[in-house]
This record gives sequence, C-alpha cells and structure tokens, in this order.
Amino acid sequence: MQNETMPNFLKNRAFLTPERKAVYFQEQTLTWIELYHRSLEVGGQLQALGVQKDQYVGVLLKNHLDTVVILFALQLLGVKAVMLNNRLTSAELVWQLNDSKASFLILEDSFAEIDLKINQQIASMKTITKERLFRIEPVVPDIEEEISLSDICTIMYTSGTTGNPKGVIQTFGNHWWSSVGSALNLGFMESDCWLCAVPLFHISGFSILMRSVIYGMPIVLHENFNVERTIEDIHEKKVTIMSVVGTMLTRIVEQLEARRLPDHFRCMLLGGGPAPLPLLQACVAKEIPVFQTYGMTESSSQIVTLSPEYSLTKLGSAGKPLFPAQLKIVKDNGSSAEAGEAGEIAVKGANVTPGYLYRPEVMKEKYSDGWFYTGDIGYLDEEGFLYVIDRRSDLIISGGENIYPAEIEAVLLAHPAVADAGVTSIDDVKWGQVPMAFIVKRQGMDVTADELQPFCLDRLAKYKVPKTFYFLEKLPRNAAKKLLRRKLREWVSKNEDSIS
Amino acid sequence: MQNETMPNFLKNRAFLTPERKAVYFQEQTLTWIELYHRSLEVGGQLQALGVQKDQYVGVLLKNHLDTVVILFALQLLGVKAVMLNNRLTSAELVWQLNDSKASFLILEDSFAEIDLKINQQIASMKTITKERLFRIEPVVPDIEEEISLSDICTIMYTSGTTGNPKGVIQTFGNHWWSSVGSALNLGFMESDCWLCAVPLFHISGFSILMRSVIYGMPIVLHENFNVERTIEDIHEKKVTIMSVVGTMLTRIVEQLEARRLPDHFRCMLLGGGPAPLPLLQACVAKEIPVFQTYGMTESSSQIVTLSPEYSLTKLGSAGKPLFPAQLKIVKDNGSSAEAGEAGEIAVKGANVTPGYLYRPEVMKEKYSDGWFYTGDIGYLDEEGFLYVIDRRSDLIISGGENIYPAEIEAVLLAHPAVADAGVTSIDDVKWGQVPMAFIVKRQGMDVTADELQPFCLDRLAKYKVPKTFYFLEKLPRNAAKKLLRRKLREWVSKNEDSIS
Repeated sequence: MQNETMPNFLKNRAFLTPERKAVYFQEQTLTWIELYHRSLEVGGQLQALGVQKDQYVGVLLKNHLDTVVILFALQLLGVKAVMLNNRLTSAELVWQLNDSKASFLILEDSFAEIDLKINQQIASMKTITKERLFRIEPVVPDIEEEISLSDICTIMYTSGTTGNPKGVIQTFGNHWWSSVGSALNLGFMESDCWLCAVPLFHISGFSILMRSVIYGMPIVLHENFNVERTIEDIHEKKVTIMSVVGTMLTRIVEQLEARRLPDHFRCMLLGGGPAPLPLLQACVAKEIPVFQTYGMTESSSQIVTLSPEYSLTKLGSAGKPLFPAQLKIVKDNGSSAEAGEAGEIAVKGANVTPGYLYRPEVMKEKYSDGWFYTGDIGYLDEEGFLYVIDRRSDLIISGGENIYPAEIEAVLLAHPAVADAGVTSIDDVKWGQVPMAFIVKRQGMDVTADELQPFCLDRLAKYKVPKTFYFLEKLPRNAAKKLLRRKLREWVSKNEDSIS
Repeated sequence: MQNETMPNFLKNRAFLTPERKAVYFQEQTLTWIELYHRSLEVGGQLQALGVQKDQYVGVLLKNHLDTVVILFALQLLGVKAVMLNNRLTSAELVWQLNDSKASFLILEDSFAEIDLKINQQIASMKTITKERLFRIEPVVPDIEEEISLSDICTIMYTSGTTGNPKGVIQTFGNHWWSSVGSALNLGFMESDCWLCAVPLFHISGFSILMRSVIYGMPIVLHENFNVERTIEDIHEKKVTIMSVVGTMLTRIVEQLEARRLPDHFRCMLLGGGPAPLPLLQACVAKEIPVFQTYGMTESSSQIVTLSPEYSLTKLGSAGKPLFPAQLKIVKDNGSSAEAGEAGEIAVKGANVTPGYLYRPEVMKEKYSDGWFYTGDIGYLDEEGFLYVIDRRSDLIISGGENIYPAEIEAVLLAHPAVADAGVTSIDDVKWGQVPMAFIVKRQGMDVTADELQPFCLDRLAKYKVPKTFYFLEKLPRNAAKKLLRRKLREWVSKNEDSIS
C-alpha cells in the first residue's frame, strides 16, 4: 500500500524548494511557490465553476504560462486532463470529448469558433474560456494532498490501424517512472533547465512538465518553435536540455552556421525517428550532443535512448531501454527474435500505459504476459541496440505529429465519389513525411484533388490532409481484402522523383 | 502488475553500460560487465554448494571487492542476504542467524574462531568461507531475469526498546525508492563517484552499493575509514560524494588543515545526528558541502536531508523529506503537532520497510494508516524543517553504530550479582556517545566494574560494552516499574564533569 501513494507533486515541490525557478514564459518567471499559489487559485476558480475531482476535463490550450497553471490546478483537484491537439477540427474534438465523457472543456479565448461548434454538438458538456475562468471568484479549493500512482493523470488520444482515435491512459505512476527513468539515463543536476518548444498537449511536451515538478527543474516554455528565440534562450536562460524532432534540429543547425551552442547545453533529446547521417554529422561538427529516442504516447515518452557517443557507430539505432524498462522483439510465431532478426517491438515497464479509456478489449489485444506490443517493427543488434524499421506499419510522422492512414482513409471513403482509398506517406524535406492518397473513383462519377482537399480540411486537422492525390483503377488488397499499404509505399518509393 | 517488476539490477546495468567503471577497491577496478561476470561465476559456485533461491543466507564479510561480488551474486540468484555486523560476538551472531532461519553463512576466512563457535551451536546451518567458495567448481547458475519490487533483498537487524534485535526487511523496492529519492535530491551525473568507507553491512554502506547499480555509478570501496587514503582517493579517483558520520568528518577536516578538497567533490552526506556548530563552521570555511541527513535501517537510509545552504541558518535541523517521502510529527494524543511542537516522528514512503522478519505484530504497533512511527522525537519549524530531539528515546549512537540500552541491560541482568541495571549514554569527544551503566547490586553480593566489563565483552560487541559503571541503591522507575532512562540521563548531564 505504501508503495502506491506519494505527496501531491506540485504541493510537495513548492514545499521542498519554494524559491527555485519553475517556469520561464516570455517575460514572466514563476518560482515553485508562486506557481503553486497561482494553481491553487485557479483550482478554486475551477471548483467555483463546478469542476470536480475524478471528472474528465478537456484541455484545448496553447503552450502558455496559463496552461501550466491550469494543468497543475487540475492535478491539485484530482481532475483528469484530456489533452487535446490544437490542430484538430471541431469534428475531431467533438469525437474525443464525447468519447472521453468530458464534463468540461477549458479552451483559449481565441478558439471562439470552435467553442461555438462544440457547444452546438455536445449539450452535456460545458466549455470554459480562459478569460471566463480567470474572472470567476474562487472558492477555497478542496485539494488532493496525496496522489496514488495508479490514479489517472492525463488522457491523450492516438489513432491506430482501426481509424478511430483511442484515449491512452497515463497514470501519475506512468509519468513518475518515465521521469525517473529519464533522470537515471540523462542525469539530473540542480543547474538543469529544459526548453519546451514542443506542444504540451503531446507527451513530448507534457513529459517535460512532469519532469520539471518531479526534479524541481525550471522549464523555458515557448509558444511554438522559433529558431532564433530558441538559440537566444539557450544562452540567456542557461538551458541545458531541449526536446526536438528532426525538422527543429535541422533548423537549429542551419541557424547556428559557424557558431556553437554554449557549453552548459548538454542534451538535445531527439524524438520522431532516427536522424539522417548528414544531420548527425553536422551535430558532431558543432558539438551538439544528440540523444536519439524511441517512445510513444503509450510509454509516456521516451523508453529507448541512444547516447551521443554511439550516434555515428550505431547510426540509425534508437539505443537501449531506460533502466526501469525492458524491450524485446517478437517474431510472427510468438518467439523472441535473435539478434539481427526483425519482429514486433514489445516493451515493458511501469511507464507503459495500463490501457485505453473505456476500451479494455484493446488492451487485451496489445498486452501479453505484462508486455505491451507496440505494433512497430524493429530488430536488436548483437549488443542489444534497437533499430526501428517501421513505425506501426502505417504510422506517418510529419513534423513531429503522428498521422494514422486509416483515419484519413475513413474520411476519403465518406466522399460520395470515392469508391476506395489508401493513404501512405511520401518523404518531404521540410516535414520528414507527408501523407499521400490513392483514390479509386466510383464508377460513372468524377472527383479531383481540388475537391478532395477542402473536403478533408473540413474533417481533419490540416497536417493530416494528403498533399498529393493519385487516382488509379484498383488498390492493392490481399485475399482478405486488407489494404496492402506496403505495396503503396513501394510504388511511392519507385516513383518518388516523378511525384514530388 | 507491470509496476512491480523490473529487470535484474546488475544484469541490466551490465547490459546498459558494460564498459563504465563499477567499483574501485585497492589496486583493482571492475567494470559493470566484469562485475556481472564475476558475480555470475560466484552465483554458480554458491548454487554448486546448495544455495537456492528464496533462502536466507547470512553474510559476515568485511568491506572488500569480494563482498560486492558475493552480494550481487546473491541478488542474481534471488537469495535474501542477512547482513551481519562484523563486530558482533558469536553469541549475537548465533541469535540473528537462528532468528532469520538462515540456511547458510558466508564469512571471511579470518573469522575461523567464530566459524567454529557458530558451527557448534547451529547444526542446521552450513558455513561457507570465502576461500572454500572461490575454490568450488561452479555450475551454470539459474538466475533471476526479473525482480519484483516487493521481493526481499536484505535483512538488517536492529534492536529496540525490547532488547532482542529484530530483522528489518528491505525489499528491492525499498532500496530502489531510496536510491531514486536520493538522486532527485542530490542530483546524479555520469561523472559521479561515491566513496564508501562505512560498512556494507549497515544501510549506510549497502545503500551506496544499490545506488551504484541503479545509477550506473562507480564506488570507491575502502575496507575501513582511513583519513589519509580518503583524501588521496577523493583526488585520484575523482570522488564526488562520500557518506560519513560526525567522527569521520571531524578527522577529515583536521587532516585537511589549510588545504581544500578538489572542486569535483560536491557532497559530504553526513548521517548519525546533527553536526555541532564548530564542525559545520570549519566545513563552511573549507567549502566542504555538508548534506546532513536523518534516516534509519527501516527507511533504507536517508529519508530527510538538509542542503548545505541551510546548514548554518537551520543549525541542528535534519532538513526536509526526499521527494517521494512524507513526514509528520504526532503528539501523544495522536493528533498532528503544530510547527514548533514536539512529538513522535512518523514517516511514509515506498523506501520504508514493510516490516520485521517473522514479526508481523511489531509492524502492527509501529504502523498506523500507512505511517511508520519511528519512536524518535522531534519537531518541525514554520518552514517544515525537521529537528530531531531524541533518537528512539533510548538510542545511543557511538561512532555511527546504533546501541540499544535494553540489549546491554539484559546482559547485565544475567550476571548473578546484579539486581537491577540501567544503561544510558555519556557524551564522548571521539565517539559522540558511549554507553554507561547504572548497577544495583544483589543484596549481600558484591561485584565491580572490572568483573562486569569482561562479562559484557563475552556477550556483546565491544562498542556496546559500557565504558563506565556506576553503582547505586535503586534505579529510577515509574509506578509500572518502567525504567526512567530520562532520569538517568538527567543525572549524567548534571554530573558529567565528575564522571568523565
């Protein structure tokens, strides 16, 4: 029993190190005690508006100091935050809010249009704009002095091969173990400071917030990625660690030109797939210590990391697991793969989700013997370094955002002139990958890319909308009529020059 | 369920960072992969001798590289180590070995006399000297690939007010959470190196070993405390952290004279009660960063720590709890004390023991609502800093060793000429405290200090034997005949000049 409870993270941190810096945002700085008092007040405002312990509450907010305050206020109240991607359409948001049975939605004042649309479609849920929230007279909040590591902290939706997004449950324990595993691997010093220019609604950004409260480490929060401001803040705020995806790192390297990052900068944590050799070589030349990682929403961020000393000798590898986690490669016949043999990547550890919200059946599919089957394909070399060959067979990663082909296909198939649709990715210099659609028109009907693009834009976040549409007679499907996306990818790679 | 298992600590560490240094001992250095292979071989030798998973095995070993290898070999096999204090008499050892139902005792070749005595007294248990162990042809060991955090790792005996020592259970989870709490508080860097000149059979030393495997950090192991060698190794081995008790720190400070410790040395972790002002001032002058701590065998080492920046402003305080732990002061009526009010110190956290071996009834007394009642008396100031007033009412700490008066009294009362006996401590310049006995002679019989001293030496470790015997008519006892040791202490402090 005593293994399960811990003091409330924010309250404890404010008690232990009240005067240490917690967050830098634009011209503002808050210490832990200041952040605690602000979160406590907002907690009182949320309770005044009827928000209660154990509810699910949607959070549709930008990276902002207020967001940090609101997220910690929810933790103080024991409210579960449904972290919503700002780039989703109102239809996608409605789906996730309904699915999570959210009681409230807290959102930016500037999202008024979305606010209206959502209000029209979900009568049972109330929306709260930041402006309204901060005007309310607070009550004295009833806060959770202790958390249980098995309590749900956040829900983050991810799609899969089946199309509809599923809410990944992240407990306080998942975040705790992820933070601790990261600290044991990367080290932690009182002088550390983590720059967060990735979205807080993604696990990449949210995990920085959790490390910050657990370690007692300040974060420098950026509303979005701006390469000049990044380099400036690394110098001025003495940033030591930063989380990036490939496109961000490329821009940093370009912007630096002949310059270097300052000596105190010690870790560039790179997610979203292995970095290409020229980028790594440029980082080596500029002495940027790149730690490549592999992780997912279900593992509450990184679970495998490659130290910079291996970045060239183990080119393309994601590294070895964090100390508390385990990794294995499982072949189609269910046995463990030998070194060099490819198979499905299975992971195990207390940072791995206990399941998907209201979907115990999905977990039964994905869990076996305590191991979580990621759907990703990879292999281990003789020394146990992981090489990821293919993300969830179908996953497209575009500028750090996950895109699931099945979700886009479902939208395309809803168009009256589309008989069949298949989506895969095409390499892109700026975004890494972008989605591309293959369309079979319905007999006797016509449709063009110019019609399908706005049709998708109404229903899908912009980054999910295919950049290219290719019309053909028939899609490659197997005997069971399962779409062979691998064939589409093969076709794309053969014809890449003529498409792009 | 997935919260509970982790990969075997040593095997995982050897896999993750095979080439990093694990341990320096005299002229020898082992990397993690070398330590793993040696422990694996010794594991095979232990199994060849009949040692099996889930057994309790007594370990009576000095601080030595072999001891590190043997302790990790036991962990590989899933064997529970009963950590025996080298300074105990054979009678005390027999008691603890019997009580723990140990199947084997692994001991130094030089402890032949004890070996003989123990063999005469416990027929059911086999002793294994190091020499014999290392000569045996090993089998291929059957090792534990995973550990459960609730599995027992070690047993360490402590006495209490009732006289007989009790075996404190320390699970892998207790050690894990203690190590993690320490890392979050002190920080951890890849360049860290911890000097261990405190006994491995105490939690102070054993916890360094556990941190070392969990962090992937080398330790410099000394057979015993030698001030010259300590300072030399801090320089040569680039030691960054060291665990000390007050007497050790005093000698380091004296030895340094006008010199300083090198800049890489960043933490002097001081246990065994608050440091006196002159010592702290000397440390400030020499820029030695002293972290004072409060902890016990039951909390698997430190649970409260004071950072050096508070060492003078919060003089006498033990600090604030580690992040995963909690602390409260409970008054006699069971309610929580206000700031400044003294009461019993209660602690909570996953580093706290689940109980005492084969003694569930003791845990029922000491645990309430998930809180462990330490028996120590203290108070919190307005800011929540802990001040320990009195260790377990009766505990005597002499040169870092815990001494329980009741245990000595029981021995004295066994002497035919002793009618009543009470033990308390007297301050000592070298050891901090030393035990002192008050004796009531049996009517018509005579006995002297010169007779009682050897009587005690046969039955008690040397450090427990009273340095002074005082004969009187009657001991202060309350109505229920409970000895009022507080009265003895008052008497001692009034008469200190005439006694010492």
